[in-house]
Amino acid sequence: MSDMPENIYEHIEGGVTAAKGFKASGIHAGFRKNSSKNDLALVVADAPCAAAATFTQNVFCAAPIRFSKSQLAASSGDEGWGSARAVVVNSGNANAATGEAGLAVCRDTADLVADAVGCAPGEVLVASTGVIGVQLPLAPFERGLPEAASLLSRSGAHDAACAIMTTDTRPKECAIAIDGGRVGRLGATFVVGGMAKGSGMIMPNMATMIAVITTDAPVKAPDLHAMLAHAVGLSFNKVTVDSDTSTNDTCFMLASGAAEPSGAPIEPGTPAFDALQDALDAVCTSLARQMARDGEGATKLVDVTVTGAASDDDADAAARTIANSPLVKTAIAGHDANWGRIAGAVGRSGARFRQQDVDIDIMGIAVCRAGLAQAFDEDEAARLFDELDEIEIAVDLGAGDASTTVWTCDLTHDYITINGDYRT
Amino acid sequence: MSDMPENIYEHIEGGVTAAKGFKASGIHAGFRKNSSKNDLALVVADAPCAAAATFTQNVFCAAPIRFSKSQLAASSGDEGWGSARAVVVNSGNANAATGEAGLAVCRDTADLVADAVGCAPGEVLVASTGVIGVQLPLAPFERGLPEAASLLSRSGAHDAACAIMTTDTRPKECAIAIDGGRVGRLGATFVVGGMAKGSGMIMPNMATMIAVITTDAPVKAPDLHAMLAHAVGLSFNKVTVDSDTSTNDTCFMLASGAAEPSGAPIEPGTPAFDALQDALDAVCTSLARQMARDGEGATKLVDVTVTGAASDDDADAAARTIANSPLVKTAIAGHDANWGRIAGAVGRSGARFRQQDVDIDIMGIAVCRAGLAQAFDEDEAARLFDELDEIEIAVDLGAGDASTTVWTCDLTHDYITINGDYRT
Repeated sequence: MSDMPENIYEHIEGGVTAAKGFKASGIHAGFRKNSSKNDLALVVADAPCAAAATFTQNVFCAAPIRFSKSQLAASSGDEGWGSARAVVVNSGNANAATGEAGLAVCRDTADLVADAVGCAPGEVLVASTGVIGVQLPLAPFERGLPEAASLLSRSGAHDAACAIMTTDTRPKECAIAIDGGRVGRLGATFVVGGMAKGSGMIMPNMATMIAVITTDAPVKAPDLHAMLAHAVGLSFNKVTVDSDTSTNDTCFMLASGAAEPSGAPIEPGTPAFDALQDALDAVCTSLARQMARDGEGATKLVDVTVTGAASDDDADAAARTIANSPLVKTAIAGHDANWGRIAGAVGRSGARFRQQDVDIDIMGIAVCRAGLAQAFDEDEAARLFDELDEIEIAVDLGAGDASTTVWTCDLTHDYITINGDYRT
Repeated sequence: MSDMPENIYEHIEGGVTAAKGFKASGIHAGFRKNSSKNDLALVVADAPCAAAATFTQNVFCAAPIRFSKSQLAASSGDEGWGSARAVVVNSGNANAATGEAGLAVCRDTADLVADAVGCAPGEVLVASTGVIGVQLPLAPFERGLPEAASLLSRSGAHDAACAIMTTDTRPKECAIAIDGGRVGRLGATFVVGGMAKGSGMIMPNMATMIAVITTDAPVKAPDLHAMLAHAVGLSFNKVTVDSDTSTNDTCFMLASGAAEPSGAPIEPGTPAFDALQDALDAVCTSLARQMARDGEGATKLVDVTVTGAASDDDADAAARTIANSPLVKTAIAGHDANWGRIAGAVGRSGARFRQQDVDIDIMGIAVCRAGLAQAFDEDEAARLFDELDEIEIAVDLGAGDASTTVWTCDLTHDYITINGDYRT
């Protein structure tokens, strides 16, 4: 984040349609048997938008990833950005490991969306989430898309956010407004908003499970991609629920340029661009934290901050190893300030440091100094574990100036229950 | 393993004292409050032995690791081998993150062992397992070592194996006898035996949690170290219970040379050395598999075999990522042949392959061919999950000739219960 004053932007109500120029809807189309759970989300722009995306690095990437890359590339020559008007997301089936048949479903889906909303098939991006290795049926799209199109509205954002949920217990939305007058765009207000889903198979690598972000600021597609990649790097890519990177991780961003008064595209290096980047970083970070807080079975959001690392990679390795450690995560579930497990994780992370230089704090309590046990009030720790929704783990490696924060959650019986029974 | 005929060696009863020249005992010394749980193991050779060791790579390595390295180095100039007569192991306290005070306890312990068994303090190796970050008291050693020394016998191996257990539910022992006549050592029988403990914080890196192996074959210490490093690489280092590498991983090996008729040291490159290596590999593999089978909360041993990898590193990365995936491990706990989670894990492992070249089998059932779902009999899968104690996952990447096997276990509610309550 830049050093820009906080009050240039403010959090506002709303999600993926908070920015001007976007409508959304969410319905039950039939990908899931349970008709009380919506499973089809549609986000449509009033006019063609600059579009950017980041996708999973998993070799087993799903058909919608391959298809959406090809859609962007067809409009721009680059798989990461281009032009688009609609994003369609289904939950209940990931359309992964489905081969050519899965790709055909993506193509047919784009045609159906184009018919339903009145755009070109080439302007449709798709994403899917759910079980892997089962062919995605087209029929629910055929039945559901006309209904979804008829329900599109600016107030449909919440329905859309709910329709992309799988084992999420709550929708994830965020929106921020920027005062353009403070950044050289007098009279304009720019909005960045979005929705995301998370919960399981979550350790995004270059993109989260599924997120759709919109803005009404005018930004060219390649600049939008650079902006998105930066935001994803410090938000979704810093979340881990269970160390499992999905086959379907996708983050789409559309820029409508519908903010008024209209103006020239916002260029990199200007105060307006920096403000937009800050707002996007904040929206993505909020969605990423919501994802960690709602990890499968989670009772606590856990912030793991590593400072004093010799490099950014060392900071990331140390924080990520702590955040992925089942022993650390079960200790938090058990309200146990068991810092030895944190030390053990840091020690095997590959980060360079000397044991005698390490300090560890849990919930602000000094539990380890200079690599050695520090006496602390166990009753105070127990009281804080009961009180706090968010548990902060801070590790200073004493080896340099690099730092990072990774978000995760505790590991509870409910994670086992959810994932032992998921498919059956 | 070499192509040597299997019947050169046979599994026999016994553990760490199955080889000639060793005695052992296990008692309750008071490191744990629960007096029904033994917590001090002693293994003593009748005469000084060639000794070798592998230790954890965790930066937060415990005091007994640092001390035992220095003991070996004092006798040989190398931290990995030397000369020793006694190994003392306590459970209940890891003596990790205990600074100079922890090292002093190791030194005093070696003095106490030397007094009790009549050897030099420099001939004593130590290991500890249990909670991290709590000072290890000397008093239980003072009280317990005379008793432990008085109980030393060849029949004490089982008590020793029980005394090193933490959350293990059963002791881990193995012994193998080699017919020397088949490998150019007419009239001789060489025995390799050992004990180990595992259960939690188990993803050894260069050595397991704690294992003690003995042999009565005559082997020089540097050769013994090379032999041990090879065996550890394909056994303990291929086990993962929860991806957490301990601060205390230690594998000691002592060679008494007490096999009769006595002879010159067995040299590398001879049939006898190869046979001994095979036997040691088999003992370590058995102990490693016992460790995975008895992982915290485990109901199943899981063998993950990756073939067709482009390199040994790729094979290891793919197999290890599957074996550490909480989603794969909970699916097995839920008796769910959810191969999409295996595909997802392989895809994010960093191993090089093409999606369309991958075949996956679970319990011998073809569930994925050429990267696509393969119809299979779900009832048959359910029946096999109920029947089998050992679940085989086989992945062919179709990218080369390298292969490996990693052992793990399923992830159940009991893992959460054990580790949510461990310290409190």
